[in-house]
Amino acid sequence: MTVGRDAGLARLFNARSIALVGATERSVWSNTAWSNCTTVGFDGVIHLVNARGGTVYGQTAATSCAAIGAPVDAALLMVPGDALEGAFDDLHAAGIANAIVLSSGFAELGAAGGERQKNLLASARARGIRLMGPNTLGFVNIGGSVSIWTSQLPPVSKGSIAVVSQSGATGSYISAYAAQQGLGLSFLAATGNEADIRIDDVISYLADDEATSCMLVFLESVRNADALAKAADRALAAGKPLIAIKIGTSEHTAKAALAHTGALVGDDRVFDAACRKHGIIRAHSIEEAVATAGLMSQTLPRPGKLTLISISGGICEISADRCDAVGAPLLDFDQDLQASLADILPDFGTPHNPLDVTGAAMLKPELFSQCVEALANSEDVGISVCLFDAPDDHQSGLLNSIIEQVADGAAKGDAPTVLMSVAPRPVSAVTRGITDAHKLPYIGAGLDQGLLAVSNAMHWVERRGQWREAPPAVRPDEKRARPVTEREALAYLDQQHVQVVPIRLAHSADEAVAFARANNGPIAMKVSSPDIAHKTEVGGVALGLEGDEAVAAAYRQMMESVTRLRPDAEVEGVLIAPMRTDGVELFVGVMRDDQWGPTIAVGLGGIWVELLKDTSIRLLPIDKEEARCMLSELRGSGILDGFRGGQAVDRDALAEAIVGIGNAALALGPDLLSLEVNPLLARPEAVEALDALVGWAGCDQAEGVAA
Amino acid sequence: MTVGRDAGLARLFNARSIALVGATERSVWSNTAWSNCTTVGFDGVIHLVNARGGTVYGQTAATSCAAIGAPVDAALLMVPGDALEGAFDDLHAAGIANAIVLSSGFAELGAAGGERQKNLLASARARGIRLMGPNTLGFVNIGGSVSIWTSQLPPVSKGSIAVVSQSGATGSYISAYAAQQGLGLSFLAATGNEADIRIDDVISYLADDEATSCMLVFLESVRNADALAKAADRALAAGKPLIAIKIGTSEHTAKAALAHTGALVGDDRVFDAACRKHGIIRAHSIEEAVATAGLMSQTLPRPGKLTLISISGGICEISADRCDAVGAPLLDFDQDLQASLADILPDFGTPHNPLDVTGAAMLKPELFSQCVEALANSEDVGISVCLFDAPDDHQSGLLNSIIEQVADGAAKGDAPTVLMSVAPRPVSAVTRGITDAHKLPYIGAGLDQGLLAVSNAMHWVERRGQWREAPPAVRPDEKRARPVTEREALAYLDQQHVQVVPIRLAHSADEAVAFARANNGPIAMKVSSPDIAHKTEVGGVALGLEGDEAVAAAYRQMMESVTRLRPDAEVEGVLIAPMRTDGVELFVGVMRDDQWGPTIAVGLGGIWVELLKDTSIRLLPIDKEEARCMLSELRGSGILDGFRGGQAVDRDALAEAIVGIGNAALALGPDLLSLEVNPLLARPEAVEALDALVGWAGCDQAEGVAA
Repeated sequence: MTVGRDAGLARLFNARSIALVGATERSVWSNTAWSNCTTVGFDGVIHLVNARGGTVYGQTAATSCAAIGAPVDAALLMVPGDALEGAFDDLHAAGIANAIVLSSGFAELGAAGGERQKNLLASARARGIRLMGPNTLGFVNIGGSVSIWTSQLPPVSKGSIAVVSQSGATGSYISAYAAQQGLGLSFLAATGNEADIRIDDVISYLADDEATSCMLVFLESVRNADALAKAADRALAAGKPLIAIKIGTSEHTAKAALAHTGALVGDDRVFDAACRKHGIIRAHSIEEAVATAGLMSQTLPRPGKLTLISISGGICEISADRCDAVGAPLLDFDQDLQASLADILPDFGTPHNPLDVTGAAMLKPELFSQCVEALANSEDVGISVCLFDAPDDHQSGLLNSIIEQVADGAAKGDAPTVLMSVAPRPVSAVTRGITDAHKLPYIGAGLDQGLLAVSNAMHWVERRGQWREAPPAVRPDEKRARPVTEREALAYLDQQHVQVVPIRLAHSADEAVAFARANNGPIAMKVSSPDIAHKTEVGGVALGLEGDEAVAAAYRQMMESVTRLRPDAEVEGVLIAPMRTDGVELFVGVMRDDQWGPTIAVGLGGIWVELLKDTSIRLLPIDKEEARCMLSELRGSGILDGFRGGQAVDRDALAEAIVGIGNAALALGPDLLSLEVNPLLARPEAVEALDALVGWAGCDQAEGVAA
Repeated sequence: MTVGRDAGLARLFNARSIALVGATERSVWSNTAWSNCTTVGFDGVIHLVNARGGTVYGQTAATSCAAIGAPVDAALLMVPGDALEGAFDDLHAAGIANAIVLSSGFAELGAAGGERQKNLLASARARGIRLMGPNTLGFVNIGGSVSIWTSQLPPVSKGSIAVVSQSGATGSYISAYAAQQGLGLSFLAATGNEADIRIDDVISYLADDEATSCMLVFLESVRNADALAKAADRALAAGKPLIAIKIGTSEHTAKAALAHTGALVGDDRVFDAACRKHGIIRAHSIEEAVATAGLMSQTLPRPGKLTLISISGGICEISADRCDAVGAPLLDFDQDLQASLADILPDFGTPHNPLDVTGAAMLKPELFSQCVEALANSEDVGISVCLFDAPDDHQSGLLNSIIEQVADGAAKGDAPTVLMSVAPRPVSAVTRGITDAHKLPYIGAGLDQGLLAVSNAMHWVERRGQWREAPPAVRPDEKRARPVTEREALAYLDQQHVQVVPIRLAHSADEAVAFARANNGPIAMKVSSPDIAHKTEVGGVALGLEGDEAVAAAYRQMMESVTRLRPDAEVEGVLIAPMRTDGVELFVGVMRDDQWGPTIAVGLGGIWVELLKDTSIRLLPIDKEEARCMLSELRGSGILDGFRGGQAVDRDALAEAIVGIGNAALALGPDLLSLEVNPLLARPEAVEALDALVGWAGCDQAEGVAA
């Protein structure tokens, strides 16, 4: 079921008739594209087009697409860059709506190439043609036996993992490694420069592709964040894990990507936040991505914890350390489980997780089936991993009988059991045949990458419920007056049910004194002016004032200083607020990301944000649960629980204030660049915004938010 | 050249005559041990011993070792635990000095087993027998073709990597993975329970073994830290990298190890410090360890930075991110290098590292040789990695010609060039043959583990100079009086040239007032007593005192409170010290680790140590360079450079003070449990110890040091 933007893609990716334009036996691209059709078993029609006509691959070539005289679903254009416009004319005349453009020399070369690419796209659009590329190797629909791929095909077999890569060579490497791991693919595409068809289009298409159970994408850059978010949501709704390798964690990649695709790498931490929001599993290597896709295409954990089994104590220990490193939650066996395992393994002391069945299990393979069954039947277990190398051939009697025992135990339990090799090893067709015959999921990635994959899968499953209940969107109120000054910003937050420190605007020294008296304690005084962002620099802040004289003197001094240093500024008066001396200061900043829109950063105040960059980031909107989660991610979060005799902060109220600030920012609409509450003061009795700063698009006062 | 403790090991590991005690065709251990001798090509003499005599493996069995009547270098004891003592008697009678004990049921089972193991060792020692095991699989001297190994041999080939593991099964997994990666071994040993021969003995032996270039060890626990340190130093002196997988990074492993070998896992961070001091490369997985050993057994980087080459832009970017993650220092190309690469790659824009030669290099392989040569000839390059899968057979014409080009370029440069597969893949004998023929080091581990290995090797090479110039040992002065109180501790530090805050001991309120007056500013007052460690709890601390009255009142109040709460305590008087209100507070703690001896921990004071556990740890002694390095490791180290308008601290003076505290602690000898300076106050003008606390073995006042 494909609609709108997808309908064209469905025709392209399931083409029954293909035109190879520029077909000639003298071109390696042409020869490869031609032979790849045979390799994948394409049983549609291939039209060869060569302006000179003649015979190519023993078949009469048409001199143009228009001359074919039959409907064509997709054309591969293997012509020089300057001949593309003519080729589009020909396609248009022939009624061909899909073109794949192999040629390079466009946006990947910088600004001038970018201009050429814009023209190319305009030229295609004017003729109603959808474009894959330029600078692409094409695609292979392995499930559907269609190939328009101009490079050597990686050794793929049919399966349910789709690989989509902006880089063709990287896509090939990924596919080849998946094949070596005995994992079949449903689909492979390289989206190249993405002038028209982007990776998100392909993801959306694959969300509905029956042959695909799971997607692995390689991203150099995100060209349309909103579309990618929608595509990811669609994959999630279809229950298909989306695993993304995205470069950009280091400074070097920003440079490399610039040279490679002419695209921006984007802010890496915001991409992490986007992954979290849209259920994308971010992998940091080909190995991790393939292992994760390999696992999740075979089975999914249920919510719960992890158990491990090995015949080597040393391997148990290495695995436990690895689980700790990757955050895979190991189950602590309860007494019942310990007792039933102790019955099975009477001489081994107290059974614990990871479970060491020792070499004795080589002589007594039924220990495997009994232990595997006991674990898979524990309600607390989300997934069980048996670390054991599957045999390479049917003749390995002992190994085969162990596999049989593991499978036997697994079949009798509810939680999925996965077999995992100890070190990385290829998974041959024979090996996969053996494990498939026993219905045992098998990962040949070795425990280092394998347990990372398990952790990825467990966290994805754990968070699925949350994605289903995303917080409701906040509608901007277009008619609202824009807060500009601190006073306006605090008043606005107050309206939006974010508690703020009680402030009053004094227009004279006398008024300041009166307000200070009413406060019953030391006060803070700050100048209020729409024109002054950096109050301290103009002597516009005085703290800890007490007594009429001090307050009056501070008022006069502040007015003198501000008038002298900023004679241009319109001054409304001074704000009088009670001094707060206890509590924990937090920083809450909303900032609009160029790609992903409004984000929220939370950190502990002062040194924590400025020196440690200890912040947690999300895309907005967030709910209270997510805000609590952000707090717990902070390295210094222990301070909220009452460090050094201080009282514990009300995390619930704090989370509520954070959500409120995020929603208040959203309600201000898309022109808001930033809204920074610094500090948000958390005390046991209250959570209050003490200061707020707003930045608007096109407005000088706009301030970046520290991250 | 082997001396002392090693001489026996040399005879064991190079045995020319072996006795298999308990040989019988009905035992799988016996059968395996026997056939393994053939597999490795052992050409010495095998004596079969069976109490019942008869024919075993077509050979007449002796009824005892004594009955053999010929010299025997080593005996494998395959007899039940309770028959071991009798077997030792027999060995003694036969003059056999080396025994390998397969049997389990000793320390790995807990306290009772530990007792049995003690008796076993005593029994062997009484008869002049050296013991390998119990609970061991034995060893294989692959270089020397000697096997006493009771389990299926992993598929090893001859090479220069030695694998030594406390766990036999884990050793087998490691060896099998090394073989799969086309890496040959010189030696394989499982040390089991290490009643006598420990892993450090084997390392010391291998340091002198000509066939071994590099060692890979798996440690569950360190049984003799001092001996391990000496063995590691010996390996380092021999120029042989020692790569250790040691479990214990997670809580779970502590439990697992307890069950598995009955040994303590030890403090993981102190082990890291020990690795740093003794040049041990710590690996966290089998994959990392094998990749690192594989690289370092083939080539060593020279000091300098890393360059990478790939034909895929995507792979370049993934690699750059990976280098960042593992701390491998990528070279920024200077203008000269950019210019020469731009001459080679005219159409590719500005060349940068990682170098993307693009798919064009598949058609024009000489691009490889030219780029590789240019990089290998740059003075800044320590090692150059070419990401390219080596061919699996001699027939892959194109791939072979690329390998040839890479090798050709590498041969013309000075810095080593390494070929590395993109994803993990087995390295067959044919593949290794091809790369060996071209003298190209090749890593099949894939870039994820491969670049980690490169980073490990680069850091090892970089730090080699430092290991050669270890700081001189500090001799304890046995006759020195032991400082106990804060006053004594500070006075002692002062003697040792660690600057301390000027303090005076006042015996009366008048004296306190006089001292306070002389100070010209607010003072701190603390009770001085050898019996009181926690001064605050007894009202023994008063801060920020100013003026005669305040000082005198505080003195009287303190005396009253201390006398009331600790009537037993001997009170010397009160310490008067100037108050310090600015500067950065640090924590410096020396603590004696049960295994590794005196360690030093440095952290920023207060919240940093208590909440973030942000400390850096080393074994003592350290030099100034190392102390500076510790400071730079702290997450909050930016605060030392003058955070928020504060002045920068003199890091040099700070490093000197840290070294001084460490040396002062060492000079106090082995009974010192801890010496804690908290705070050490760093200001631009001075670094001063403000407080010091000493703990002695067997003394109640001893305090743990926060870490």
